[in-house]
Amino acid sequence: MLYHIKVLVFLKDGVLDTQGKAVLGSLHRMNYTDLKDIRIGKYLQLWVEASDEDTARNRVKAMCSDLLVNNLIEDYTIEVDELS
Amino acid sequence: MLYHIKVLVFLKDGVLDTQGKAVLGSLHRMNYTDLKDIRIGKYLQLWVEASDEDTARNRVKAMCSDLLVNNLIEDYTIEVDELS
Repeated sequence: MLYHIKVLVFLKDGVLDTQGKAVLGSLHRMNYTDLKDIRIGKYLQLWVEASDEDTARNRVKAMCSDLLVNNLIEDYTIEVDELS
Repeated sequence: MLYHIKVLVFLKDGVLDTQGKAVLGSLHRMNYTDLKDIRIGKYLQLWVEASDEDTARNRVKAMCSDLLVNNLIEDYTIEVDELS
């Protein structure tokens, strides 16, 4: 079966988000002063062929730890949808 | 009130995701051949001060259209949580 898996990758609390700070500054200069903070992460959509949902989830966890996520500074959440 | 708003930004269907293709190639070389495709977008977390949820959502939509999202090639979804 094909599974559609959404992974949200975000910096851990306390890790400086330099990209976010730059964007925050830009938006403040554009008068969006009601914006108090912004943090920027990655949204990954994966399509994985697997026999069941647990297998798909575990494969994606392995990909995250092997390549997609830097677990020194990032955390992630996984959401799985069955497609077919 | 402070609202925590999550924005998922992703490439429109049909727009080539060069970063995704590069990562797909890397994962295939690492024997993750059960991965059929991957698309890479942005996960933005914003904290916005507003009188109500609709106002917060509309301010974030304005920021997306002014700076955060390139609406020629990207789409986005918004999810709002009330914090205080």
